[in-house]
Amino acid sequence: MKAELIAVGTELLLGNIANTDAQYLSEQLSALGITVHHHTVVGDNPERLAEALEAARNRADIIITTGGLGPTYDDLTKQTICKTFGRALELHEDILEEIRSWFLTKMGKEMPENNVQQALLPVNCTVFDNPVGTAPGCAFEEGGVHVLMLPGPPFECRYMFEHRASQYLEKLTDGVIVSHEIKIFGMGESAVEQALREPMTRLANPTLAPYAKLNECMVRATAKAATAGEAEALLSPLIRQVQETLGDVIYGIDVESLEAVVSGLLREKGLTLSAAESCTGGLIAKRITDLPGASQIFRGGVVSYTNEVKSAVLGVPQDILDEFGAVSESVARSMAERCRAICASDLAISVTGVAGPGPDCCGNEAGTVYIALASEKETICQKLSCGRGRGRDRVRTAAASHAFDILRRWLAGLPQRA
Amino acid sequence: MKAELIAVGTELLLGNIANTDAQYLSEQLSALGITVHHHTVVGDNPERLAEALEAARNRADIIITTGGLGPTYDDLTKQTICKTFGRALELHEDILEEIRSWFLTKMGKEMPENNVQQALLPVNCTVFDNPVGTAPGCAFEEGGVHVLMLPGPPFECRYMFEHRASQYLEKLTDGVIVSHEIKIFGMGESAVEQALREPMTRLANPTLAPYAKLNECMVRATAKAATAGEAEALLSPLIRQVQETLGDVIYGIDVESLEAVVSGLLREKGLTLSAAESCTGGLIAKRITDLPGASQIFRGGVVSYTNEVKSAVLGVPQDILDEFGAVSESVARSMAERCRAICASDLAISVTGVAGPGPDCCGNEAGTVYIALASEKETICQKLSCGRGRGRDRVRTAAASHAFDILRRWLAGLPQRA
Repeated sequence: MKAELIAVGTELLLGNIANTDAQYLSEQLSALGITVHHHTVVGDNPERLAEALEAARNRADIIITTGGLGPTYDDLTKQTICKTFGRALELHEDILEEIRSWFLTKMGKEMPENNVQQALLPVNCTVFDNPVGTAPGCAFEEGGVHVLMLPGPPFECRYMFEHRASQYLEKLTDGVIVSHEIKIFGMGESAVEQALREPMTRLANPTLAPYAKLNECMVRATAKAATAGEAEALLSPLIRQVQETLGDVIYGIDVESLEAVVSGLLREKGLTLSAAESCTGGLIAKRITDLPGASQIFRGGVVSYTNEVKSAVLGVPQDILDEFGAVSESVARSMAERCRAICASDLAISVTGVAGPGPDCCGNEAGTVYIALASEKETICQKLSCGRGRGRDRVRTAAASHAFDILRRWLAGLPQRA
Repeated sequence: MKAELIAVGTELLLGNIANTDAQYLSEQLSALGITVHHHTVVGDNPERLAEALEAARNRADIIITTGGLGPTYDDLTKQTICKTFGRALELHEDILEEIRSWFLTKMGKEMPENNVQQALLPVNCTVFDNPVGTAPGCAFEEGGVHVLMLPGPPFECRYMFEHRASQYLEKLTDGVIVSHEIKIFGMGESAVEQALREPMTRLANPTLAPYAKLNECMVRATAKAATAGEAEALLSPLIRQVQETLGDVIYGIDVESLEAVVSGLLREKGLTLSAAESCTGGLIAKRITDLPGASQIFRGGVVSYTNEVKSAVLGVPQDILDEFGAVSESVARSMAERCRAICASDLAISVTGVAGPGPDCCGNEAGTVYIALASEKETICQKLSCGRGRGRDRVRTAAASHAFDILRRWLAGLPQRA
C-alpha cells in the first residue's frame, strides 16, 4: 500500500517548526510495510489543501493529514477534506463531552465555545479520541482511499498514531507486520550496508533496512505473516545472521539508547555510576539523567571544566596536571578514580579532551579525547579521535556516546574496541 | 515572490531524518520577504521528482531543491531538473578541480571517479561552489521561474544558502530586506501576540511576526527598502515600540540563546560561574559549555544527583538536608554557596527539584524547582513550577532556562520575575 502525508500549517511554511510528524509517521508506516511516496506541506489555506488532496487521492491508497484540527477559524482540515471527498460533518456528542471534561479537569476551566468545532467529524468515520489533547482525529474510506486525520502537535500526533491510527492501518494490511530494531554503535552505515548487503538485497520478506542516526546506526528487520508468531519465526534466523555478522557493535535490539542499555546493566548488577566530565561539560550526566529513575543508578559527578576544579573538587594531584596536561591519559585515569572516591560510586567514568573548534593550548587537535573507567578492581583508559572535525557539538556527542559504549562493554564483559 | 521547496531523498520518506532543510530555508526565505507556499518531499525517483517540478513551475516563482546532488547512481536531481526545464548538463572543469582538491586535502585520498558527476552542471547557470563538501549547487532561470539546487546534508545546505544562494535571491527582490530577531523568555507566544496585535496587524512594511520556540518565543521584525540604512530606519521605531511594550522579558536582539547572553554578560564583567545541579543533571553545564570559549567564564560544577553527593562533594550540611529535604529553598541556597566556594567562582547557580514523571518521596509535584544564585554579596532563591506536567524533558529544559534567566537578570541589574 502507498501512503502520502499532508501536513497543514502555516507555521511549517514559516520555518517556525520542522515537520517532525512526517518523520515519525514515515518511520512507523515503513515498519507497518506501508510505503510513503510523498510528503506535502501546505499552509492553513483551503484551496492549496484541496489541491494537495486531489493530487494525493489519485496516487495513494492512504492519505494521512497532520494539523488543522484546532478550534480556531484557520483550522480547516476536516472541512476541506469533507468537501473534497463529498462527506458531511456531524456533531459527536460523546466527543464533545470528552473535550468539555478535558477542559475542566486538565485546564481547570470551562470549554470555550469555539471548541465545539472539534467535535464535528465526518459522518461514518472511525473516531480517534484524544486523551492527551482536545483535537480528536478520525479516519474514513472513500473510493478505495483511506483518509486519516491526526493532530499536529507532535506529542498528540504520536500518541494518536500509536494508540489509535496504527490499529486502523494494521487492519488494512493482510496479516501482521512485526519489526525489530537492531541498534549499532561503532560501525558506520556504509560499513553496515556492505557487511549485510547479501540479506538486504536478497530478501523481500523479511526485509532488512539500514538507518543512520547521529553518531550511530540502526538496522530494522521487518516481517509480514498471518500471525505474529509466524512473523517472529521469519525474523529470528535473520536477526541471528545480523548478530553473527556484526558481533558486539550491536548494543541492543529494540532498546532506546546506549545510555538506556548502560542504565539497565547497572540496575541488573546493582551498581552505581558517577561521572567526571571535562570537554563533555555535563553531557554524560545529562544523558543518563534524561531517563526516569536515574537516581537509582547515577550518584552524580563533577564537571571539571578547569584545572582548578579538577584539583580542588575532584582532587586530581596538581603534579599530574602539571606534568601531563589536562588532556592526557594520566589525568583521565585520576579523574575517574577520584570521582569514584568522592561520589562513593561503584564505577566512575571520566572524559577529558578538546571539544574545539581549535586545538588546545598544548597542541592537541579538536576531537582528541581520553576516556577512563574506574572500578574497584581496575581503571581502564582509551584515547579516541571523536567527531572528525565536524564541530564542537559532534565531538562532544561522540565522546559521550563512546563513554557509554566503554561502560556497556565493561558491564557486559565484552572486549573494549581496539 | 512565491517559493516552493522540493526535498529529494528516500531517507526522508523512510523517516530516517526530518526535513530540517525545509525549516531552515523557510525561515530564511521569510526573512527575505519571499513567501513559501509548499514543501514537497519525494524519494530518489526521477518520475515523481519530475511531477513535483511540473506542479511547482506552474505555481511558484522560485523552486529550491535540496538533496540528490551526490555522486551515486540514485542522485538524479540535476538530470531530472535539466530534462524538465530543457537544459543540457556540461562539465565545469574548475569545479572538478575543486572537488579533486577537496578529496586530497580534506579526505587525504584521490577523488573516486564517480564524483566527476558532481561537476556536471546545467549550461548557463550560476554555480554555487561548496567549500564544506563535494556537491556544488547552482541556479538558473527559465521562463520566469528560478530554480536553485542545494545539497541535502543540513550543514552544507545552510552554508550554501547563507553564503551563495541568499545573494542570488536578494538580487531577485527589489531593494534590500533587513530583519532582526527579538528574543523573549518568560512570556508565552499568545500573550506576546496579544500585546503586539496592533503593530502586527497594522503594518505591511516593516512587519512583525511571532515564532514560538521550545520554552521561549521570538518576534521577527522585517523591513524592505532601497538600502540597508533605509530599512534600519523603518525598523528602529518598531523595535523600540516592541521593547517598550514587552520590557525586560526581551533577553536580546539577534542573539543566539539565553546562555549566550549570560556568557556575554559574564565575559563583559569579568566574572566566572559554576553550577550545582540536581534535577537538571548537568544540563546547565552542558548548555553553557556548548558555546566555544566557555572555559573563560565557566569553571565547572557538581551534578549532585543524590543527597550523599550533595553533602560529601558539595558540602551541603547534613542537618539541612535532613530538616528541609533535598527539594527546598535551604538546600538550593546551600548548594549554590557551597558550589561557589569549592569551585572558587564569582557566581554559582544551583537547581534542585523534581524532574518527574511522578512526585518525589516528600510529595513535591513534578516540576517543582528551586533555583538559587550565590554571589559575593548575596544569595537569592526562587521557587518555580516548570514544564507543567509535559514530561521530564520539558521540566528539565525549562528549569535550566529559568536558571539562565535569573543569571541574566542579576548580571544586567534587572529585577527578578515575581
